[in-house]
Amino acid sequence: MELDTIAAISTPMGEGAIAIVRLSGPEAFDIADHLFKSVGDKRLKEVPSHTIHYGHIIDPKTDQVAEEVMVSVMKGPKTFTKEDVIEINCHGGLVSVNRVLQLMLTNGARLAEPGEFTKRAFLNGRIDLSQAEAVMDLIRAKTDKAMNVALGQMEGRLSNLIQRLRQEILEVLAHVEVNIDYPEYDDVEEMTHQLLLEKASFVKKEIEQLLRTSQQGKILREGLSTVIVGRPNVGKSSLLNSLVHENKAIVTDIPGTTRDVIEEYVNVRGVPLKLVDTAGIRETEDIVERIGVERSRQVLKEADLILLVVNYSDELTDEDMNLFKAVEGMDVIVIVNKTDLEQKIDMEKVRQLAANQKLVTTSLLEEQGINELEEAISELFFTGSIEAEDMTYVSNSRHIALLHQAINSINDAIEGVDLGTPIDIVQIDLTRTWEILGEIIGDSVQDSLIDQLFSQFCLGK
Amino acid sequence: MELDTIAAISTPMGEGAIAIVRLSGPEAFDIADHLFKSVGDKRLKEVPSHTIHYGHIIDPKTDQVAEEVMVSVMKGPKTFTKEDVIEINCHGGLVSVNRVLQLMLTNGARLAEPGEFTKRAFLNGRIDLSQAEAVMDLIRAKTDKAMNVALGQMEGRLSNLIQRLRQEILEVLAHVEVNIDYPEYDDVEEMTHQLLLEKASFVKKEIEQLLRTSQQGKILREGLSTVIVGRPNVGKSSLLNSLVHENKAIVTDIPGTTRDVIEEYVNVRGVPLKLVDTAGIRETEDIVERIGVERSRQVLKEADLILLVVNYSDELTDEDMNLFKAVEGMDVIVIVNKTDLEQKIDMEKVRQLAANQKLVTTSLLEEQGINELEEAISELFFTGSIEAEDMTYVSNSRHIALLHQAINSINDAIEGVDLGTPIDIVQIDLTRTWEILGEIIGDSVQDSLIDQLFSQFCLGK
Repeated sequence: MELDTIAAISTPMGEGAIAIVRLSGPEAFDIADHLFKSVGDKRLKEVPSHTIHYGHIIDPKTDQVAEEVMVSVMKGPKTFTKEDVIEINCHGGLVSVNRVLQLMLTNGARLAEPGEFTKRAFLNGRIDLSQAEAVMDLIRAKTDKAMNVALGQMEGRLSNLIQRLRQEILEVLAHVEVNIDYPEYDDVEEMTHQLLLEKASFVKKEIEQLLRTSQQGKILREGLSTVIVGRPNVGKSSLLNSLVHENKAIVTDIPGTTRDVIEEYVNVRGVPLKLVDTAGIRETEDIVERIGVERSRQVLKEADLILLVVNYSDELTDEDMNLFKAVEGMDVIVIVNKTDLEQKIDMEKVRQLAANQKLVTTSLLEEQGINELEEAISELFFTGSIEAEDMTYVSNSRHIALLHQAINSINDAIEGVDLGTPIDIVQIDLTRTWEILGEIIGDSVQDSLIDQLFSQFCLGK
Repeated sequence: MELDTIAAISTPMGEGAIAIVRLSGPEAFDIADHLFKSVGDKRLKEVPSHTIHYGHIIDPKTDQVAEEVMVSVMKGPKTFTKEDVIEINCHGGLVSVNRVLQLMLTNGARLAEPGEFTKRAFLNGRIDLSQAEAVMDLIRAKTDKAMNVALGQMEGRLSNLIQRLRQEILEVLAHVEVNIDYPEYDDVEEMTHQLLLEKASFVKKEIEQLLRTSQQGKILREGLSTVIVGRPNVGKSSLLNSLVHENKAIVTDIPGTTRDVIEEYVNVRGVPLKLVDTAGIRETEDIVERIGVERSRQVLKEADLILLVVNYSDELTDEDMNLFKAVEGMDVIVIVNKTDLEQKIDMEKVRQLAANQKLVTTSLLEEQGINELEEAISELFFTGSIEAEDMTYVSNSRHIALLHQAINSINDAIEGVDLGTPIDIVQIDLTRTWEILGEIIGDSVQDSLIDQLFSQFCLGK
């Protein structure tokens, strides 16, 4: 596939020692040669692949030195995109890296769309779609466990499993084909039914097992949306600070939005908690009051985990009761805080209210009970199984939806066989399952979906 | 000089396609070889210098793949630090890059201090101190002009000039030496005096010329600290938005501080305006009221430029008059805004109040007068001379202070000759000048100063 040459800044924006401007495409070497001048006047087009060259970027309009750089030359197809790739390491300042990029863009390169380098790696067949999606998951990973899941997927663990399942289906389909072509042999029909049931059940079981990892996978990938609620002065800020203090917080500015939208993640034993509206808690210590009752109910509803804090040294109030009612049926951990003070709360009553929920007592002031809280969070979502490093996880909503579809269509096939449906109808269901699984690895997806998927990438990847 | 091996993340923090972990020092190759595994099991120690290698970082404790990477191998002395350098390009996620760094640190490398790579380049004699300082200026540059000044300094423009001046002084000193050794020759003494006056005056003139660039140099380097003042509703926010809208704003989170300290720069015709307390203006539209009179006087006093806005469609109030009084003697541009509305202001009075200051009329609503305002800002600080790209600029406060000291001591020498001071006293002043100039390029500076200078660098540089 012959595409144009794209360029983008591939390092995070900000000030640092080094920034990289990456070029990929058939003109990459020519464009770089036009702008780069080394001491010995080397032509990048002629140097060996995978070598590094010191020199300067010269603005051809003014003949002035624009930047001092190191240029990496990588000839396709042994590159990230399978195309010719140039990486220009320049100083990591906003002006310098933009200057180098601009010169590339005014001398033949086109600004890459978000994810376009990875998209080319996919289109050129170096990786499949699930691997490409894992690249972004890896970059966005908030904990080690999340990164390991992404890394496994990127290295093809999910792809291999999906391909194996598709192979199984193909083999059945081949048998079905024989059955249709030679309907006169009764024993072939019997054998086919037998084999079909066996294989289809196997595939179904495998998919079901994969789907069992999906809740954990999704949490690792997207973080656990966590809300802290409680009356004023029960210690919500202290709880937040304890979690952040004990576990280094990762603050992410969401690109393309105003400064106000800030996501804060806390890594609790490998589980990324995404703390909702922490700025609000910090500032006013009262999310419920601040954002209004209606809005706060919405926030609660959308949360994966609710930390409900009550005051050990105070009696339960109507407000507390309302909060217990509001979070009924959700994943809640009840935190009875301020055990360093005199008990006034009716613990029996609290236990009753928290009947189906985990309960932890803490004195955040004296740093008591934080370990137990973290334990409770970890247990609520992960019951040991996450530790299996070599497991194949499914974490991506698109994959999960497709796996559910695949289960449905393979169920249709199994039922069909049971009901004695004509074998060529069963064949359609099986083929459909094979296609659905193919969509996960990008074997049979539409261009518009591909465009949409890659547009969620960051620039320069 | 044999130092230990240091490691740091050299790209800006944040999410991006690529991040770089850099190693430098005698163990760089060994550490990388211990952790890196390529397909062909290459030893990085044995590959040619300046080559790139694909493979994986393996955690030696678990034997698990920790990250997929590209490793650049650069053998000293042809490297940034003159030492053996390894650059590991990994995925630009917070977890991945920290994971790679941690593995380096637990397997023999030490976390680099801020600026330590550049410090080694200096200590190992690849660049002098003024060049090292320019590296950081280049990264922090907010406009093209500022970057060009830094680039020129980094490439040795200032160093060369300083070295030429030192050479001149050395030549005079040699003559003085002859004079002291052979005092019996009268004509030598005369010649020496003559030469000394000539050369010293020349050096003085050169330094003075350099110092003339210092105001502009400092503004380019540090930005023009700019405050917008005016009564409520005169259009301060609109002015801010116009400036930001017309000229892409550069928002910098200051590393190591809380999120609240945000500097916003606007590039006005190559002049970086550092807008003070823009968040305050945006939120309340009233900096003076918000921060209190005492504090705002302080802000005004520290500003390099004050944009005083008054309302064309309203009469001048006492508050306006107080503002005019408060900014007396400062660099002020008076902006009469809202010319789209009916005139109520007494322009004669305004002109009187702004007697020595630039005056611009605008209708920010109708986007009128913004060009004139930018012109006025540019003219106030740069009268054409900045356009001379090949000029040597001095921009660093340390350099400026040293140049002033050098002028003083060379003046002492010149006066000494005029007053007939014994030549060996004059020799002391000249030697002192030579030493002071040497401090600029790091020829004769104390270790503690060097440590302090490099500690202001960003990590990984």
